[in-house]
Amino acid sequence: MRAGRSGSTPPRSSASRDASVKVAGRHYRTIARTSDGEGVEIIDQRKLPHRFEVARLDTVAGIARAIREMWVRGAPLIGATAAYGVCLALREDPSDEGLRAALRTLGATRPTGVNLRWALARMEVGLVPLPEHDRLAAAFALADEIAEEDVRICEAIGEHGLTVLRELRAAKASPGPLNVLTHCNAGWLATVDWGTALAPVYKAHEAGLPLHVWVDETRPRNQGASLTAWELLSQGVDHTVVVDNAGGHLMQRGLVDVVITGTDRTTATGGVFNKIGTYLKALAAADNGVPFHVALPGPSIDWDADDDPSAVPIEERSPDEVTSIRGRDGSGAVTVVALTPDGSRAANPAFDFTPPELVTGLITERGACAATREGLLGLYPERRP
Amino acid sequence: MRAGRSGSTPPRSSASRDASVKVAGRHYRTIARTSDGEGVEIIDQRKLPHRFEVARLDTVAGIARAIREMWVRGAPLIGATAAYGVCLALREDPSDEGLRAALRTLGATRPTGVNLRWALARMEVGLVPLPEHDRLAAAFALADEIAEEDVRICEAIGEHGLTVLRELRAAKASPGPLNVLTHCNAGWLATVDWGTALAPVYKAHEAGLPLHVWVDETRPRNQGASLTAWELLSQGVDHTVVVDNAGGHLMQRGLVDVVITGTDRTTATGGVFNKIGTYLKALAAADNGVPFHVALPGPSIDWDADDDPSAVPIEERSPDEVTSIRGRDGSGAVTVVALTPDGSRAANPAFDFTPPELVTGLITERGACAATREGLLGLYPERRP
Repeated sequence: MRAGRSGSTPPRSSASRDASVKVAGRHYRTIARTSDGEGVEIIDQRKLPHRFEVARLDTVAGIARAIREMWVRGAPLIGATAAYGVCLALREDPSDEGLRAALRTLGATRPTGVNLRWALARMEVGLVPLPEHDRLAAAFALADEIAEEDVRICEAIGEHGLTVLRELRAAKASPGPLNVLTHCNAGWLATVDWGTALAPVYKAHEAGLPLHVWVDETRPRNQGASLTAWELLSQGVDHTVVVDNAGGHLMQRGLVDVVITGTDRTTATGGVFNKIGTYLKALAAADNGVPFHVALPGPSIDWDADDDPSAVPIEERSPDEVTSIRGRDGSGAVTVVALTPDGSRAANPAFDFTPPELVTGLITERGACAATREGLLGLYPERRP
Repeated sequence: MRAGRSGSTPPRSSASRDASVKVAGRHYRTIARTSDGEGVEIIDQRKLPHRFEVARLDTVAGIARAIREMWVRGAPLIGATAAYGVCLALREDPSDEGLRAALRTLGATRPTGVNLRWALARMEVGLVPLPEHDRLAAAFALADEIAEEDVRICEAIGEHGLTVLRELRAAKASPGPLNVLTHCNAGWLATVDWGTALAPVYKAHEAGLPLHVWVDETRPRNQGASLTAWELLSQGVDHTVVVDNAGGHLMQRGLVDVVITGTDRTTATGGVFNKIGTYLKALAAADNGVPFHVALPGPSIDWDADDDPSAVPIEERSPDEVTSIRGRDGSGAVTVVALTPDGSRAANPAFDFTPPELVTGLITERGACAATREGLLGLYPERRP
């Protein structure tokens, strides 16, 4: 299935009642083992929303490239993909050196998200003690476990988030749908299935709660305009795309009832590293009394990170992502166009930090809590020192 | 000179010591009467930064279209252009009906900026009392006066802003250039010459004050990435383009010393209507202790507007500006590419409101003041009730 399905925007479908998401009537996960058991299939997210293409990866080098170049992205999905990367590496070289090299290569792909480090650490701990000839099978079993766990975690986030959305809808003075604003893509494409920030939206849509989603386009890579909009369109969820500049104005005018984003790394004190621009929306939410929630899987909590955000590396990506953009031209071809004058420099920090004071609540697979150390420890008591 | 100069990015030039800005060695203003005295020449700003093209306009319909479709933009330049639009209308029909129709057509082009209304009111007051046969010459004289006054105002804003920048540079603890962040384009392209927010930058550059400008790309129309970057490149001012999402992070990391923006309408109490996204940068500046200054010509003050921003109409522009973007493809051709899936809706509010509490100071042609009613009345005492 190397070529996979290839097409443009899928038709709108009614709400799926299934655990995985439909694209043009077929269920997909963002990553799955190939039927021959020797590789993995991913959705090449660089092509969306213009083309839906499944790509097969058979080597650790291919996996590392797919993470670095963002064929796959989203902290939870990066973690699961890296776990499968270890498997593919061990098929080539199951030795200690082979394992260490794979962990190093994969660990260097993206610096900010914490699930990547978490997944690799889990693979390392599980595989190092084993004899070489047992490692490959154990690695696939572990990677499958990480992927399945991600699906369960995300669905549970959806259920807990649905409770939050129901309460907000009940408290809303005016009629009409609950207006949710989200930044970047923390949908099923960012995880193995369901999503983090969008899992509550999908659960609410299934439950018949009227809602409408404001989608930040999320420059420079436009994951909102390309991925979130495409997901919501596929699932039949009412939505409107806006530029990243618009959210503050929408909140000033009372057009946003709640902001929900995902996170690449949550500190032990409830601060949130997420896609660049998240902090600006959190400031606007606070200034306008709009609740600002962050949906996160337990593995994205960095229990070692606290009040010093400058200790966390912020990935600086290529300036080309700022000076140019990919889109569909009049002939339907996907092409890259330059936006700035030749000679103007660009900078491209990929993440920012939202301090816990700006976060109304965290929504995890274990329930919702305050964005504080005590809030998190209440849900994860095993982390108490 | 219908075709005018046509080319791509102008070469870097050293600081101009002249009152008007050089493009490839020639001085340009953004609007000027043609040598035959019968029309006006403008720079077609939709083509920048990819092509520098001068367009000739001979009719009021052409002027109205150029304003509505943003061949010219920027509140001060819109005002001056509309004034010349009245002249061209009177050449066709100098009657009272002709004058009224022109005022109506031009007044309906853009709803948010106040200079447009101000310029049209000034033309009306000056022309209505005159006999028909005297109106055309008087109209051109008035329009020339409005344009010349804009140049003087902007240069004075530059001088007063330079004082602000000098003080900030002197107070800066670390070495290195003064880091200025600006949003949208409030440079010479937004005015007849010099600019508002960028006038202090040009004055500082001329004076040898070391500075570096962070340029917000300013989606959806990317006036930062296309116009501000092009202006700064032309004048040899060090700058870096960033996406609109990045400014908060840059401020958190101490990389911004001051924010300066322009404004389309300043309320009598010091609130600022400006390009969508300005409010988000003002929030981040306040949260990080970064001074946030707004540069404005007196004619952009709306003395009738005060603490109720919802009374001011916010222009809602075409969703196409969000769902697609114009850029230069690999062959050098300027083309439009689609960014969102077909079927996703978009919204496009063009301005937002920054409340006076978030504004450190206003820089006008009469000096700098606090963003308060008293501050403004101190500079414009003739407005005291």
